[in-house]
Amino acid sequence: MRQDLDRLMQARNLQAFIIPPSEVYSPAAYYLAGGILCHPWIIKVQGQDPILLANHMEVEEAQKSGYQVISFDALRAHEIIREHGEHSPKGQALWWARFFDLFQIKGRVSFYGTVEAQTLLRWQNVITSHFAGQVELVHDTPPDILSLAAETKDPAEIALMRSVGQRASAVMRATREWLSLQKVGPDEGLLDAQGGPLTIGAVKRHVRALLMEQGLEDVGGAMIFAQGRDAGIPHNRGQEDMQLRLGQAIIFDLFPRSMGGGYFHDMTRTWCLGYAPPEVQQDFDTVQQVYYKSLEGVSVGRPVRDSATEVCQWFEAAGHPTRLNQPDTVQGYVHSLGHGLGLMVHESPGIRHLSPAETVYQKGHVVTIEPGLYYPDRGYGIRIEDTVYLDERGELQNLTDCPYDLVIPMKSS
Amino acid sequence: MRQDLDRLMQARNLQAFIIPPSEVYSPAAYYLAGGILCHPWIIKVQGQDPILLANHMEVEEAQKSGYQVISFDALRAHEIIREHGEHSPKGQALWWARFFDLFQIKGRVSFYGTVEAQTLLRWQNVITSHFAGQVELVHDTPPDILSLAAETKDPAEIALMRSVGQRASAVMRATREWLSLQKVGPDEGLLDAQGGPLTIGAVKRHVRALLMEQGLEDVGGAMIFAQGRDAGIPHNRGQEDMQLRLGQAIIFDLFPRSMGGGYFHDMTRTWCLGYAPPEVQQDFDTVQQVYYKSLEGVSVGRPVRDSATEVCQWFEAAGHPTRLNQPDTVQGYVHSLGHGLGLMVHESPGIRHLSPAETVYQKGHVVTIEPGLYYPDRGYGIRIEDTVYLDERGELQNLTDCPYDLVIPMKSS
Repeated sequence: MRQDLDRLMQARNLQAFIIPPSEVYSPAAYYLAGGILCHPWIIKVQGQDPILLANHMEVEEAQKSGYQVISFDALRAHEIIREHGEHSPKGQALWWARFFDLFQIKGRVSFYGTVEAQTLLRWQNVITSHFAGQVELVHDTPPDILSLAAETKDPAEIALMRSVGQRASAVMRATREWLSLQKVGPDEGLLDAQGGPLTIGAVKRHVRALLMEQGLEDVGGAMIFAQGRDAGIPHNRGQEDMQLRLGQAIIFDLFPRSMGGGYFHDMTRTWCLGYAPPEVQQDFDTVQQVYYKSLEGVSVGRPVRDSATEVCQWFEAAGHPTRLNQPDTVQGYVHSLGHGLGLMVHESPGIRHLSPAETVYQKGHVVTIEPGLYYPDRGYGIRIEDTVYLDERGELQNLTDCPYDLVIPMKSS
Repeated sequence: MRQDLDRLMQARNLQAFIIPPSEVYSPAAYYLAGGILCHPWIIKVQGQDPILLANHMEVEEAQKSGYQVISFDALRAHEIIREHGEHSPKGQALWWARFFDLFQIKGRVSFYGTVEAQTLLRWQNVITSHFAGQVELVHDTPPDILSLAAETKDPAEIALMRSVGQRASAVMRATREWLSLQKVGPDEGLLDAQGGPLTIGAVKRHVRALLMEQGLEDVGGAMIFAQGRDAGIPHNRGQEDMQLRLGQAIIFDLFPRSMGGGYFHDMTRTWCLGYAPPEVQQDFDTVQQVYYKSLEGVSVGRPVRDSATEVCQWFEAAGHPTRLNQPDTVQGYVHSLGHGLGLMVHESPGIRHLSPAETVYQKGHVVTIEPGLYYPDRGYGIRIEDTVYLDERGELQNLTDCPYDLVIPMKSS
């Protein structure tokens, strides 16, 4: 949790860390300063509140974080640029000297958050070569302190994640209902209002409109709505121009975020419109049984690898290959059991049979549990995924709320 | 342009560069591999096409880039994790040895794109300490080769940017029209359909729905729609719960991106609903005159700093403070003249009076031109911004298409 940061900094002997401004969205910046609509530097000195350094045009916005904000003008960068140019080593060293002085930073220091690789390599070079004995640029052993802190959620974060989960679930339920109302052509292909083919692209546009009504967004347009053979490739997003058809397995993996930044939800359902072929129904039943059993395996103090390993064993016992004993298989159960979730879709802990033994389930963990079976050559894939939370009593709460049923009966037929 | 990359790599003696996978959107990855919906490693060796290294579940999606894709399984990472653990220095060194071997990488190498700071610092450490004499991790002097290449757009990029510009302009024109149709209460406050106050939050939701219809998105919910005193702070986004009022200066800065990833457009209009106070109209006229003159100053071969400096001089001649001669002023003209635009909102070149003398306008540049005046204490700010393109003949084309008029006459009154 956020309140653990000072303890973690102390344990790793880190005097200060710096989250630089980022042109692209930085979950770490959000974690420290909240959803402010600007890009300040964030400086955290051990034992002190974060301080923000912002462009003069963004000082007011940065102050919404509740933390002290200093205008970038304090560094008088224009003087340095006039005298030494914008990127000279001497100018850069002078800039960093003023920066360290302003925030009284010395000792073991590091950078966190999203950065441009070239920028960080340049800073690393300037700091290492000009500040020896004064500032030592170090890095953390994974999981780093921000990942460790973010891995367990505090009550305020849970409230936000619960809300995102309810809204995402509402969108998936509404999509299920909407699909059931669509017309079916004589060849079992679904039709849109104009009588043309109803495509996956049209479904995704409908889902994105539903998300927007709920204040959610499909970041990067990345939702998975994959039908038939494509559903057999776990990360295949689905083909935009493919028509929906009865009896095809559809994997719908929805992982929206609060609009503009914030927390994610992550959930998957597998659907067959109208009817399900027997072999799909049979493998679906297996996945659903494994899914329910795997929830029982999530308990505080247990190594996540044990939980992931037993799921592989259950699938293998049912006759399916897994990566536990066939590390290169692309059929059967071919991915991890789940992952932490929060300001990023994928956070610590990863729940894999190869996870370190010391990674255990903890109170405050919010993770996905998502077993599945994939047979692209047979034309289908199946996955069930919910986002679950280990509460302060160590009890498992499900933040997802949507029926699991495979078959969506078509109301038109 | 993209085709310049090999020449730039040769000029800077860079044998290869690596764009690592990123959980958050990476413009550099998009630049090299296009809009694929997955997160491969991208490896570019001088003189060769990029090669992608992808999770086995994402190989198919990665192949949509048109480049060779190798499955991550080729590195047999599971063996390394089993033997050495996931993050041991020895395991990491072994992993990088296999990586460099697989792609035949040696000599001067660097990383580009969006990365997590801790991850890059760890790699930097492993590579520097284990591969001396074989692989030298270097960094580029700004502007780096990717920024330099991306700074000039090829015809395919221009076609995409032209389309985004047309669609963004359509949204701004539609918003202008929509505002003119709203009801006005007895106190000059605008009303929504239910007779309640029409707020900035409601306007932004309407704009986002219009953007979605055009296949565009307001990334990070960051659009600026700021009224009155807030418009006087250039990066103030506007208060969600503030009611729109007649006669208040509104700055509407819209910078949407193609949905899911791709190119941005960037444009700003200043509006007064119903009528404009005389001092706002007067300063608006000044900004508009400066805006037109500043377009004339954008010509191939001219240092961008000259163009930015003369805009400061014009404003100063009209009696307004600027950062040219008052580096700390927060009233008057307080920001740069513009910036490059493409896969990021802010790219090279920055157009500032402090830009390096060697930064000149070039054919293929797509930049914003956005003079403005800001007087928060007087309750207003003004900005006009279009995105313009220096074409292959060196002629300036405007990619934005929306009236500049300050006053939006209300049709209801």
